[in-house]
Amino acid sequence: MEKTFLKKIIAQLTYIERRTSQRIMHDSTPAIWQTTRRQLTADCRIFQVYTEHCTQPIDGREGDFFFLECPDWVQVLALTPQQEILLVRQFRFGTKRLSLEIPGGILDPDETPIEAAIRELREETGYAGSDPQILMTIYPNPAIMNNRLFTVLISRCHPVGEQKLDPNEEIACSKIPVQQIWQRIRNGDIDHGVALDALLFLKLYIEDHPETFEIHTAEPK
Amino acid sequence: MEKTFLKKIIAQLTYIERRTSQRIMHDSTPAIWQTTRRQLTADCRIFQVYTEHCTQPIDGREGDFFFLECPDWVQVLALTPQQEILLVRQFRFGTKRLSLEIPGGILDPDETPIEAAIRELREETGYAGSDPQILMTIYPNPAIMNNRLFTVLISRCHPVGEQKLDPNEEIACSKIPVQQIWQRIRNGDIDHGVALDALLFLKLYIEDHPETFEIHTAEPK
Repeated sequence: MEKTFLKKIIAQLTYIERRTSQRIMHDSTPAIWQTTRRQLTADCRIFQVYTEHCTQPIDGREGDFFFLECPDWVQVLALTPQQEILLVRQFRFGTKRLSLEIPGGILDPDETPIEAAIRELREETGYAGSDPQILMTIYPNPAIMNNRLFTVLISRCHPVGEQKLDPNEEIACSKIPVQQIWQRIRNGDIDHGVALDALLFLKLYIEDHPETFEIHTAEPK
Repeated sequence: MEKTFLKKIIAQLTYIERRTSQRIMHDSTPAIWQTTRRQLTADCRIFQVYTEHCTQPIDGREGDFFFLECPDWVQVLALTPQQEILLVRQFRFGTKRLSLEIPGGILDPDETPIEAAIRELREETGYAGSDPQILMTIYPNPAIMNNRLFTVLISRCHPVGEQKLDPNEEIACSKIPVQQIWQRIRNGDIDHGVALDALLFLKLYIEDHPETFEIHTAEPK
């Protein structure tokens, strides 16, 4: 009890020292705020907006913060045997414009990231492949969203049937040689935040597995 | 008048043809939905949630969609003369955890992306640099957000004073040699979506300007 109290005092002093310190480039550890209460502000179907009252455990600062509770997302780096990458183009209701992206979507309840990736690829492009693997797991927007985004690489993709689109979906598919994607990014043709994250992971993966990609020269179809 | 009507019919037929087509990998153009009404669902200070009723202009499909009206954001790739990159670590209320990122924030009204980048760098790290330039402009989340994110590169950064943090901000700064950042990403140490976008643009920039980066070997301080 007393020990906890002392620890709190010491933490408080350490904190004050840090805040008043002349050292800018410290690599100290910011405090983890605690949520003391929360309330649903808006239920928006694919996400819920909450207002949370949070407290800084060391110096007792308090505040109300808004955040979005979102299901996890998945996106798919789908490569053909010729090392082309599958792209999707669709209207986006946030930006009110067409957006060039890679296939992806929201994980269904009890669905694994790999299962969701295979399903989304099949639904949005009519393609399927093999050896799905999670390249990276990130947080799309840590400041206001709680969800994770899984980037799944699927190889040897080939057409297996029709697209299976939701009533409001309209998706144009295309494919380009992987080595051309970087210029498309430089040109600003691909400006979708999380799709670009996936392409960074693809770039690092290619650097780590050059043999996989050197073998094939792109054969545009 | 009659011409418009005919054009609408032809568009409708083209649309039906496309929806029923056996060709999967077409690169056709999805329709741009029109917003017929909107209402404010929640005002969350740093963003507003709207419910919009939208209509597909060709086949008349309708639906209600939620989206976040957000101010534009900026993030800063701040490099020292030794080609180290400045990183910030802070608690994030969306994910309820510490997040390793690059400096950035929300553009103030009437502030240019460059002005915001210089201000955020100064406030969050106490550093300033020279030759600020916008590397890329992207959309963090086209599906549900309308805002843009500007990534600004600032060179020759050096300490000029204290951090100037908001009341609820607590930011730990650090710097690492640019050539070490890619391994930190592979390790999963950096998992913040838009920060990773900026690092992809930095990677492409380094590929395009090798001379700038070959000269300097990192000298950790």
